[in-house]
Amino acid sequence: MYDLIVIGSGPAGLSAAVYGIRAGLDLLVLEGKPMSGGQVLNTYEVDNYLGMPGMNGFDMGMKFREHADAMGVSCKTAEVTAVIDHGQSKTVETADGAVYEAKTLILATGAEHAMLNIPGEEEYRGKGVSYCATCDGAFFRGRDVAVVGGGDVAAEDAIYLARLCRKVYLIHRRDSLRAAKSLQNKLSDCDNVEILWSRTLSAVSGSGLVEQITLRQVEDGTEEELPVEGVFIAVGMQPNTQAFRDNVPCDEKGYVLAGEDCATKVPGIFAAGDLRTKQVRQIITAVADGACAVASAERYLNGN
Amino acid sequence: MYDLIVIGSGPAGLSAAVYGIRAGLDLLVLEGKPMSGGQVLNTYEVDNYLGMPGMNGFDMGMKFREHADAMGVSCKTAEVTAVIDHGQSKTVETADGAVYEAKTLILATGAEHAMLNIPGEEEYRGKGVSYCATCDGAFFRGRDVAVVGGGDVAAEDAIYLARLCRKVYLIHRRDSLRAAKSLQNKLSDCDNVEILWSRTLSAVSGSGLVEQITLRQVEDGTEEELPVEGVFIAVGMQPNTQAFRDNVPCDEKGYVLAGEDCATKVPGIFAAGDLRTKQVRQIITAVADGACAVASAERYLNGN
Repeated sequence: MYDLIVIGSGPAGLSAAVYGIRAGLDLLVLEGKPMSGGQVLNTYEVDNYLGMPGMNGFDMGMKFREHADAMGVSCKTAEVTAVIDHGQSKTVETADGAVYEAKTLILATGAEHAMLNIPGEEEYRGKGVSYCATCDGAFFRGRDVAVVGGGDVAAEDAIYLARLCRKVYLIHRRDSLRAAKSLQNKLSDCDNVEILWSRTLSAVSGSGLVEQITLRQVEDGTEEELPVEGVFIAVGMQPNTQAFRDNVPCDEKGYVLAGEDCATKVPGIFAAGDLRTKQVRQIITAVADGACAVASAERYLNGN
Repeated sequence: MYDLIVIGSGPAGLSAAVYGIRAGLDLLVLEGKPMSGGQVLNTYEVDNYLGMPGMNGFDMGMKFREHADAMGVSCKTAEVTAVIDHGQSKTVETADGAVYEAKTLILATGAEHAMLNIPGEEEYRGKGVSYCATCDGAFFRGRDVAVVGGGDVAAEDAIYLARLCRKVYLIHRRDSLRAAKSLQNKLSDCDNVEILWSRTLSAVSGSGLVEQITLRQVEDGTEEELPVEGVFIAVGMQPNTQAFRDNVPCDEKGYVLAGEDCATKVPGIFAAGDLRTKQVRQIITAVADGACAVASAERYLNGN
């Protein structure tokens, strides 16, 4: 029986592993893919993780993993299919039929940005296609960009980008935004934001980097080209919590219910990183969660 | 009028500056000393900031500052004496008589560990004297150490160190602990923890690194030497919030009342890092606060 099993090896999981092993806990990390780092790996450049400016996402993922390796963390590749609470012990079942047992669990399987699944989207990811204005907006200073979506995040992204970019097109498939009224007011104060209503994004293209996007009128299907250097897709996120939902309370979108202390509704099970209910999903906040989740796990192990 | 003034240039303040400037906010950092980094600067080695293993605290502080400099953050050395809320604008007064104005403020002046002010304490800081078991415990694997204090933190530190060290002495000036009963139970389960009651620490000594400590019996003042390689002083923390307490609600210990979103009770004023009410005070959680505080400041500026 382990003291702690960490499920997931992105920034939150690896940080939890580093904190856990430094605390002398007997722990195991289970990772779904044989490559640590999570979403970071697919990030072209990270420039807001204090102390590591202008770092390629893949290199950052490797540095995170090397740190955990240097501490002697053991990672095992296994797809977790269920976690079960037995009170004093918890079991983790994996797709290969194995069962692991621990006194505490930290769930850290992250989340994924919803994709549009249109031509060019995958190809130009990190080359003009982004899913996070806070992360990548600063790379598009003075350029023309587009934001796709109609909710709060899309509106916030457009406002954020309006301060940096020359022109921001907000592309929405409907003829009104779902975003909060205050955000809509703020949007209309931005002289360089233009909302293109009742249009969907049908393709991203360029030569090496994004040069234009194709928009389709929802009503009649006519298409037009729009020259932009960046396109920010803000159509939602999907937490990777399918394996936990039966046994750990989640909100209606599937995020594990847990606050800053990372404690879920199940004593001894903690949630760290993008998969928990929180406002700011950034690499640095996921890494901080790893520390907070271990502190809470220790407190639980201490009977406190 | 700035969009944002950040007060403090430790990990929280510099991270807020990086996030703020990338968001296109017009901002200024006011730092009390002409050297950024905060408590990190006095840390011998930091080994739990994911991606930067085994880093000297001074170097880490410099890396943090370089990151902010590379983004074009402007820092000004000035001792803040008061912050005043005027609703839409906030003013910051400094000891040299200057007044700065901004739409939002992020308070990030940190906290300090209370010191015992005994011979050898300052001299052996980072050479065996530590104020944070979570931060430094792992450097004392297999060694004999002492913890000084009687509250929850001292008890938690002793339990934490018991998993790593050969022997842990818990030194307390009274004949009973203030720590939670559950922690006291857990402490008595630790075979390698010995509580030395009714004693104070009167000196730390060694040759280059800590080799022993001097204990004084509270009752009769007799002294004894105890050979240890590490001594963890857990006698409280002091938030650096004297300049804010009149205008920003704080708890009874002086920590600014603010949750994970870093929003204080005063709209438009945010608190990031060790100075706010929180459970885990680590470099990484301070840096994460910088990101969260800027996200909240943006939401406030967006009228949301």
